[in-house]
Amino acid sequence: MIQKPRGTRDFLPAEMTQRRFVEQKMRSVAAGFGYGEIVTPMFEEQELFTIKSGEGIINEMYAFEDKGGRKLTLRPELTSAVLRAYVNEAQMAPKPLRWFYFAECFRYERPQKGRYRQFWQFGSELIGADSAAADAEVIALAYELLKCSGVRFVLKVGHLAPMKHLLSDLDAPSQKQVMAALDKRDMDLLETTLAALDRSDLFEPLKVLVTAKTLPEIFAVTGDIPEKTRIEETFGYLEAQNIPFEQNFGIARGLDYYTGMVFEGFADNLGAENQILGGGAYRLAHLFGGKDVPSCGFGIGFDRVMVSLGEFSLETKPAAAVICTPETRIPAYKAASSLRSAGITAVMDLLDRGFGAQLSSALKSGASFAVVIGEKEAAAGTITLKNLSTAVQTEMSLESAIEVIHGSCR
Amino acid sequence: MIQKPRGTRDFLPAEMTQRRFVEQKMRSVAAGFGYGEIVTPMFEEQELFTIKSGEGIINEMYAFEDKGGRKLTLRPELTSAVLRAYVNEAQMAPKPLRWFYFAECFRYERPQKGRYRQFWQFGSELIGADSAAADAEVIALAYELLKCSGVRFVLKVGHLAPMKHLLSDLDAPSQKQVMAALDKRDMDLLETTLAALDRSDLFEPLKVLVTAKTLPEIFAVTGDIPEKTRIEETFGYLEAQNIPFEQNFGIARGLDYYTGMVFEGFADNLGAENQILGGGAYRLAHLFGGKDVPSCGFGIGFDRVMVSLGEFSLETKPAAAVICTPETRIPAYKAASSLRSAGITAVMDLLDRGFGAQLSSALKSGASFAVVIGEKEAAAGTITLKNLSTAVQTEMSLESAIEVIHGSCR
Repeated sequence: MIQKPRGTRDFLPAEMTQRRFVEQKMRSVAAGFGYGEIVTPMFEEQELFTIKSGEGIINEMYAFEDKGGRKLTLRPELTSAVLRAYVNEAQMAPKPLRWFYFAECFRYERPQKGRYRQFWQFGSELIGADSAAADAEVIALAYELLKCSGVRFVLKVGHLAPMKHLLSDLDAPSQKQVMAALDKRDMDLLETTLAALDRSDLFEPLKVLVTAKTLPEIFAVTGDIPEKTRIEETFGYLEAQNIPFEQNFGIARGLDYYTGMVFEGFADNLGAENQILGGGAYRLAHLFGGKDVPSCGFGIGFDRVMVSLGEFSLETKPAAAVICTPETRIPAYKAASSLRSAGITAVMDLLDRGFGAQLSSALKSGASFAVVIGEKEAAAGTITLKNLSTAVQTEMSLESAIEVIHGSCR
Repeated sequence: MIQKPRGTRDFLPAEMTQRRFVEQKMRSVAAGFGYGEIVTPMFEEQELFTIKSGEGIINEMYAFEDKGGRKLTLRPELTSAVLRAYVNEAQMAPKPLRWFYFAECFRYERPQKGRYRQFWQFGSELIGADSAAADAEVIALAYELLKCSGVRFVLKVGHLAPMKHLLSDLDAPSQKQVMAALDKRDMDLLETTLAALDRSDLFEPLKVLVTAKTLPEIFAVTGDIPEKTRIEETFGYLEAQNIPFEQNFGIARGLDYYTGMVFEGFADNLGAENQILGGGAYRLAHLFGGKDVPSCGFGIGFDRVMVSLGEFSLETKPAAAVICTPETRIPAYKAASSLRSAGITAVMDLLDRGFGAQLSSALKSGASFAVVIGEKEAAAGTITLKNLSTAVQTEMSLESAIEVIHGSCR
């Protein structure tokens, strides 16, 4: 038997209904913020991702050569692709550009629980605005997107400037070591790393970045760095919008890539693999041959959001099984068509079954009503509406039946 | 500058809005027929497609080996993938299964106008029903999907039985030659092909398959073949649903794959590359290691439908630019949030611009209204609503503004 490729999934209708329901809510929130959808190709030149993330990423990507010898890869993330599209097609458009995407990404790694080789991200990129208001808008959008899904989560917001300030007299490799320890919130590792660099004096101030709960504590350690006002404004705008968040100035998210504000989100119920959001301010366009432009964006791990939500009940569209005989199929077609026009799912038998088998199949299918058209109804121009929950049945006009079905679903 | 891969496209928001609008209409039609969505992986084992279409298809696919040496390919079509998923996961489910998909496919060929290496199909597969009603339902669904999009098209319906009957004493390679000519409706090629096979006697009856406009003409040539009643019933059910179609018993669509009813759709305004629909009854599950099951489905070329439609005007969601000063940003956030909750797109300035620049940007953005919150309004707890078409502005409560904005979009 041919199987699906390792680490991939098939989604059957019950699961897709739930996924599309959450996706639609997210689309609606993004539209409310004035973000428009962008779609880029499923594969890109490998170079696009190695420029951003280094050659090492090739080992984690579905990289392949096409028959023309071009080095391509299934996209591992969208930010690079979206900025590439911006450079190719939209550099001249009025700023800022507000874009969102809902897109499949691919990674080549050992499949494990909750991590698949094909996964979905809902994300956005704000291009061409560099302000506290821009930072706050992107964080607010990420927050509202997660909130609308129903997932329970914690939002953490920081900024790279305080950390960069404290580490400014270390060389780049030492900075990276220290930041990795901070990003993991591993204080033991941080302490030994600093000791090895003979900079144990940095331990207490760096610890404050991770543990402090207020901005004054941060600036007590860093002094009045140039980014102080911007950070205070951003936090103020978030508070003005009643967005609950924890500050964390230990978030590193890769120093080379992000340039200022950074934020992350964690689901309450996912154990160790609980990060469902990551984002921040960055600059990439110039690396892809474009003009330098400030940008800010995030990606939401849609699959993890769905795992966190679990199964939930959905209001389903009203549904009716149209039941007929071989002789009454023609009026039954007209009834099905009218039901569909009225927004009611109408399903007809395709297996030439008798009345009893059609009714029992309708019951199993989860339809709420059967619209029965026997020879009597066909002759009278009526239908018999059977409520499949109560088994009550009444002969009536199709128009009345449509009213009853709609009424029952309110 | 890094470019998108050859033969692929980026879609910016204006185009995506149009594509999603048509997609949503199609989803709604499919739901009305009781079809549920299925999603399969972007890549599959190569074998899945070579079993169905022969080794030759490898040259037309994005085939690659992953690092584990597995021969994979970006999917060139969905029917095989959907049937593979059926065999893997849903053989035991009650029949029939009504599934639809909206999915990217990939082909490796020289890019040309209207043919891209990544393209979209909207399609469906009905699994486990083998009846005239099943055939008619699938054709009706395809028809309604195209109709709801607004595309102007011709639907052609046939069945392989009459052709198979006439060609039954030819060997398989000869059958293929003759069918290729018929499928192209190339009567000169048909005549020379038959002459070379020394079967010119078949020319007139085969020509009837392509040219006849009524079923009696077909059965006058073939006699009472076993499929006669089934074909008459299918056509009768389509007529009962007022589905306009032309009969064409010259449609071949690959003898090895399709087993009975076949149909195609052609857009009125696309020139030579005008096929936008292809489908029919087939059997594939047993080739993938499953139990034999009758199936019937189709794919719609979504990109060509969009080309055929051209640009069209869309009712857009009401949109307002919320205009504020640095001092009134906090009440402005509350206003934006209330507007969004009321289903109105609300966009705020992110570039710390003055009133005038914010207004002129709002005008350019296509927003219908500006919701202005200066210091006066902030102090009074009001807003000034400016209609950007008429330039009329009035101070009022935010609640009244929401009513006015909604009222203007009805």
